Amino acid sequence: MTKSIDFYFDFISPYAYIAHKKIKIINSKNRPIFNYKPVLVGGLHNLQGITAPAFIKSKLKHMISDCDLIAKKNNFDFTWNSKFPLNSLSIMRGYLFINSDIKSLYLDIMFQAYWKDNLDISNEKILITLLEKCKIDTNNFFQGIKDPKIKNELRDVTKVSNDKEIFGTPTFVINNKIFWGQDRLEFALDEYNK
Amino acid sequence: MTKSIDFYFDFISPYAYIAHKKIKIINSKNRPIFNYKPVLVGGLHNLQGITAPAFIKSKLKHMISDCDLIAKKNNFDFTWNSKFPLNSLSIMRGYLFINSDIKSLYLDIMFQAYWKDNLDISNEKILITLLEKCKIDTNNFFQGIKDPKIKNELRDVTKVSNDKEIFGTPTFVINNKIFWGQDRLEFALDEYNK
Repeated sequence: MTKSIDFYFDFISPYAYIAHKKIKIINSKNRPIFNYKPVLVGGLHNLQGITAPAFIKSKLKHMISDCDLIAKKNNFDFTWNSKFPLNSLSIMRGYLFINSDIKSLYLDIMFQAYWKDNLDISNEKILITLLEKCKIDTNNFFQGIKDPKIKNELRDVTKVSNDKEIFGTPTFVINNKIFWGQDRLEFALDEYNK
Repeated sequence: MTKSIDFYFDFISPYAYIAHKKIKIINSKNRPIFNYKPVLVGGLHNLQGITAPAFIKSKLKHMISDCDLIAKKNNFDFTWNSKFPLNSLSIMRGYLFINSDIKSLYLDIMFQAYWKDNLDISNEKILITLLEKCKIDTNNFFQGIKDPKIKNELRDVTKVSNDKEIFGTPTFVINNKIFWGQDRLEFALDEYNK
């Protein structure tokens, strides 16, 4: 079995967006070693009694300036989403529903819509334009994400993540070790290269 | 007025210990630019409705391995305190009480006792041996930290920090900008050097 780094993400997380941008740079230089795992960060927080920074005034304020600084340092386009925190459930389920060959483009388009273009991705009209960019059949998509199989799959990944003691996004897992935060990607790579 | 970076710390915070070690390296190469501000991190958490990682099983577990990794990467001696979280109130009040010329040694000895030597610094006998190392008169110390003036001073710094929307330790403040976490020291220095 080829070794890889599991990357737990939720489109709702600005730090997951930053991690995704960093991963793209790494992937452009090597064979892909990251295995994307969608997980509902709100679900993890609920299960573990964690109040998200989004709901603590001082933390939210710091997070906005912190993300801005990190993005600038890395030359990543970044705009704080003025409707944060938006509900990401549809696009998270969508990631599980769509075909494998479209997942990479879908990640780019959804992350960019949320964290670069300041779009309300919980709005169906906006979502449709994004799906069209991905050349995804929208009727098929909206039917697919209602499928109990897909709903359960996302719920199950979140449950299993909770059992593994993952508590936020982005999280990297390699050799059963957990690294939390975009600024711990380096540590995950160290573990990978051990 | 000479520009400086305010460094908000609590001895209870392992990341504050790591930040202190980093600051010592920076100070060894330049004139000191850090202004140490003791703040009760538990007080900030209470005021802002934050549950400390110490009380969330998964976060605590991650914090232990994370601190260990960061310390290793920086060649800092570090041992997780087996009695974490210990009450730091006496040594925090003590920092305000002692004379200025002894504060730097006191910082080193208390941080090291907590985060390198795995000592129970809430134990009076152990604290006495540490105070003796600092050449502090112990009777004088224990009387001093009971002084309402000292108690109020620590409470006031914590209150003012809360008003400034500081929510954890270590925190760096420069030009009214807040940088949270030992891994944001670099950002604070960037702001300082602007």
